[in-house]
Amino acid sequence: MVSEEYCEVRLIRRPAGRVEVDDFVVVTNPLPVPAAGEVLVRNTWQSVDPALRMRLDERTPRGYLPPIPVGGVLGGLAIGEVVESRASGFVPGDIVQHVHGYREFAAVPADGETLGGAGALTKLDVSVAPIRHFLGPLGSAGLTAYAALVRIAELRNSDTVWVSAAAGAVGGLAVQIARLRGNRVIGTAGSPEKAAHVRDVLGAYAAFDYHDVDLVAVLDDLVPDGVDVYIDNVGGAHLEAALNVLRPHGRVALVGAVAAYDGIPPQGPANLFQAVARSLTLKGFRVGDHVDLVEQMRTEVAAHIANGGLHVDETIYRGINSAPQAIVAMLRGETLGKTLVEL
Amino acid sequence: MVSEEYCEVRLIRRPAGRVEVDDFVVVTNPLPVPAAGEVLVRNTWQSVDPALRMRLDERTPRGYLPPIPVGGVLGGLAIGEVVESRASGFVPGDIVQHVHGYREFAAVPADGETLGGAGALTKLDVSVAPIRHFLGPLGSAGLTAYAALVRIAELRNSDTVWVSAAAGAVGGLAVQIARLRGNRVIGTAGSPEKAAHVRDVLGAYAAFDYHDVDLVAVLDDLVPDGVDVYIDNVGGAHLEAALNVLRPHGRVALVGAVAAYDGIPPQGPANLFQAVARSLTLKGFRVGDHVDLVEQMRTEVAAHIANGGLHVDETIYRGINSAPQAIVAMLRGETLGKTLVEL
Repeated sequence: MVSEEYCEVRLIRRPAGRVEVDDFVVVTNPLPVPAAGEVLVRNTWQSVDPALRMRLDERTPRGYLPPIPVGGVLGGLAIGEVVESRASGFVPGDIVQHVHGYREFAAVPADGETLGGAGALTKLDVSVAPIRHFLGPLGSAGLTAYAALVRIAELRNSDTVWVSAAAGAVGGLAVQIARLRGNRVIGTAGSPEKAAHVRDVLGAYAAFDYHDVDLVAVLDDLVPDGVDVYIDNVGGAHLEAALNVLRPHGRVALVGAVAAYDGIPPQGPANLFQAVARSLTLKGFRVGDHVDLVEQMRTEVAAHIANGGLHVDETIYRGINSAPQAIVAMLRGETLGKTLVEL
Repeated sequence: MVSEEYCEVRLIRRPAGRVEVDDFVVVTNPLPVPAAGEVLVRNTWQSVDPALRMRLDERTPRGYLPPIPVGGVLGGLAIGEVVESRASGFVPGDIVQHVHGYREFAAVPADGETLGGAGALTKLDVSVAPIRHFLGPLGSAGLTAYAALVRIAELRNSDTVWVSAAAGAVGGLAVQIARLRGNRVIGTAGSPEKAAHVRDVLGAYAAFDYHDVDLVAVLDDLVPDGVDVYIDNVGGAHLEAALNVLRPHGRVALVGAVAAYDGIPPQGPANLFQAVARSLTLKGFRVGDHVDLVEQMRTEVAAHIANGGLHVDETIYRGINSAPQAIVAMLRGETLGKTLVEL
């Protein structure tokens, strides 16, 4: 029995600086009717991602996803159950992922939009792992961490790896995937407690709170020979420090720039000449360009989850009314691992 | 007949900001006596390179060449004639290149230091081209431009290329090598006259003076589809503009950061997130890592010089006493093409 109404999260004003809960409103709508080629999905899990922040501004970077209009419903990866299908290949009961998140029900076209190549309407194999993991370690967070290490940074056995935001959804997986491949990993995180978690639970060789320290001095002390690979989830001062501690031919995977997401003006590294002096490579990427790696990633990561080698951190909020709070907490660094809303 | 004395250029004070002629002094010394394994070279051509600027400061980037001590002789690529040899493989009359520049005579070890892999004592084939070209289009300037395009930026036929400092030693060659390979090239330069030269003589599709313009707006207008490859000889605002106009999967070869060389504090690009949004790659390199390309480069470039397809720009100063002036003029952008001192 499907109810006649559902709730969705809309943007009601553009954040002036940091995002506030009151920038959003939860609105009740009549249930959508799927058109031909669409399925009606009852969403059960919502992925809460830092990248959403940029789409709340009036302009997004060129070539990036467009801004969410004021008054418009938010979007993002979600998982749900097909309750009605007018698209071939899908039947009621199918568990699917798609990009029409932040709403309890969605009419999803079978061949519709994606988020830069990721999140096409896809059936998920519920036997592999808890289904929410397809939004985390077996989904875009896992693929981002995996592609950053394996393809973008071309990780080698002997590499020393530094991961920033190492207690975050992508960072925590990058730490563990690299560690499980035998690499020495340094993690930085936003509190002493998170740093301890990265070291003691996620298995980093060392981890520390980046606040009030000289990043270069601490890294020099921990790994005097320098760093080969830096997985940059942060930008700003972290990237500047990385340019100083990277060894010749070091590689940076530019995953995100969380420091700049929440209304803080981004700061560029003033020492980019280091990249010339030591033949460094900085490579930005969008996970949607690397969906060809998803099966390989899932095989490797699912095996580690199954044998207990990989720890899955999650911060789960309950109910669509908690989604604004989940977004705010995630952007302020108050969540651990993958931030999810169970709808 | 070899004279008993020679002159060399020493640093007498570290520049406070912009380099001044009075930061240097030309000193007369007794002729050096080559030790076993060394050759005595009478230098005839001195290469004047932007990279020297960094070695005049008290500190250089990690992994880069060390600073020149106050009171010490400058160093850099030079060409000369062997007048006495105590090293096997070299005889008087050989024309050689080495890194003991800024002096009229030098005792050069046959297996001595290089500048980051470039400039080992090497005999040159005088039949190929005017010998000074081995400091320019057939030397490190040519190899830098060639490696930047072919290896670092992985130039493809259909790429639109933007070259900054396009009237400079490296930039002018990058413009022409790319143009001769059939690519559409945009050049920026430091004056309307230089821009006209880049367009009319070097054959760029378009070129303009970067002063007092909105780089992104002009580039958008010239190449609405964007740029695939940016050869960055400048850093600063140029790199920031490039991040905005590069197409998805665009590539930046970080050659230098002239803007930061002459005492102007470097400025990092505040929009590095563009690299994430459009999967851009920024790659720094030092030419010394790419000496394996030198024969391939010389074959291609020498053929174009011989058939008139490639124009060689040079600004030549005469006599070692003019070397300080040559350095200052080159750093201020007052020279065209390769800056040389004929000794």
